Amino acid sequence: MPPVITGFAHSPDRGRGHARDMRLRWAFEEAGVDYDVRLLSFAQMKEPAHLALHPFGQIPTYEEDGTGEEEGLTLFESGAIVLHIAERHGGLLPEEAGARARAINWVFAALNTMEPPIVEREAAGYTEREKSWYGERLAMLDARVDQRLGELSRRLGEADWLDGAFSAGDLMMVSVLRRIEGSALLARYPNLTAYIARGQARPAYQRAFDAQRAAFEAARPDGA
Amino acid sequence: MPPVITGFAHSPDRGRGHARDMRLRWAFEEAGVDYDVRLLSFAQMKEPAHLALHPFGQIPTYEEDGTGEEEGLTLFESGAIVLHIAERHGGLLPEEAGARARAINWVFAALNTMEPPIVEREAAGYTEREKSWYGERLAMLDARVDQRLGELSRRLGEADWLDGAFSAGDLMMVSVLRRIEGSALLARYPNLTAYIARGQARPAYQRAFDAQRAAFEAARPDGA
Repeated sequence: MPPVITGFAHSPDRGRGHARDMRLRWAFEEAGVDYDVRLLSFAQMKEPAHLALHPFGQIPTYEEDGTGEEEGLTLFESGAIVLHIAERHGGLLPEEAGARARAINWVFAALNTMEPPIVEREAAGYTEREKSWYGERLAMLDARVDQRLGELSRRLGEADWLDGAFSAGDLMMVSVLRRIEGSALLARYPNLTAYIARGQARPAYQRAFDAQRAAFEAARPDGA
Repeated sequence: MPPVITGFAHSPDRGRGHARDMRLRWAFEEAGVDYDVRLLSFAQMKEPAHLALHPFGQIPTYEEDGTGEEEGLTLFESGAIVLHIAERHGGLLPEEAGARARAINWVFAALNTMEPPIVEREAAGYTEREKSWYGERLAMLDARVDQRLGELSRRLGEADWLDGAFSAGDLMMVSVLRRIEGSALLARYPNLTAYIARGQARPAYQRAFDAQRAAFEAARPDGA
């Protein structure tokens, strides 16, 4: 049986592929691995059956069946799942030990350095938009994201990918940067915009994107 | 030559071991590996020599020399460095593939699910304390951290560690939770407080803590 991941039945990104299942879909496609998807409503994400898989009540999860010799496996962090797919299959991490460690370093940089201020800015849009202080806060949040984008842009320079060939590190960094695609923040850094486009041009990305979009469209109420 | 990491010459945590070099020191001690430390001023962290190692101008970094056969290696994300130490040496990850993937899942959970709201709350203390809205914001930040603590507390339950034996996942989770140690937030979850204490009771933790404290004390101006 192929591994099973979970995603939103009704993604708040309206099919733009910003939700974290997209990272897994993309990794599966790069590795050439079949997978199945189970879609969850927001209510289902908070039910005991899902909390047993994901203690924080979110998507995605990853489940693989046991074999005669090995137990089954459940994971729930997108970074860990992408690494697990990369370690089980080819196409996402270099062979050489040092290059492999540096690619993994970029996975963590995407998730622990770049994504937190981007998510914080996104969350403020949901929770503080009606507050009197929102304008001043948004400027602070923008400045924090801009600092990281500037640092990343300087490191990337004119290179195609962050460290040699395309790797799981680029897959994760492009996925994180896509959360602010179309924003004025990214427009200041043409090399980052081109980097994202380079990721999106990969056939594996496109197959993954089309699959999540099809799931979103299929779950739409008629005429929505 | 042992690997070299960087830390703060004058840690803003005043020797409490909350800075990210502590995670590396702890991992080295668990693995029984010697290491050297280079301490940096805040000015040095933004100089080209350091930015060549760490594009975001922070600590820690990790450098290991090349051998005749392999190039040297530089890493800069605490999660990637702890995983690298764990993969090169024993003591931090289980042997069995599934258990190993689950331990790595907890490293990512610490860094991508638990740490961001904790860091956001900490950052607000520096950047928004004088703002008129700080009280209302702090309540929102506390609620977000509390939600994650509650979910983590339920998952941990009465277990000693997050998944079987102590692993790099616990090392990272305890390190992240220590950022709010002593706060009213943690006091609501006695099993998490006990979990942190269990981590701190490990001899490897104590050696790492003493080493960073000694570095802090040595760098103090006389009489401070």
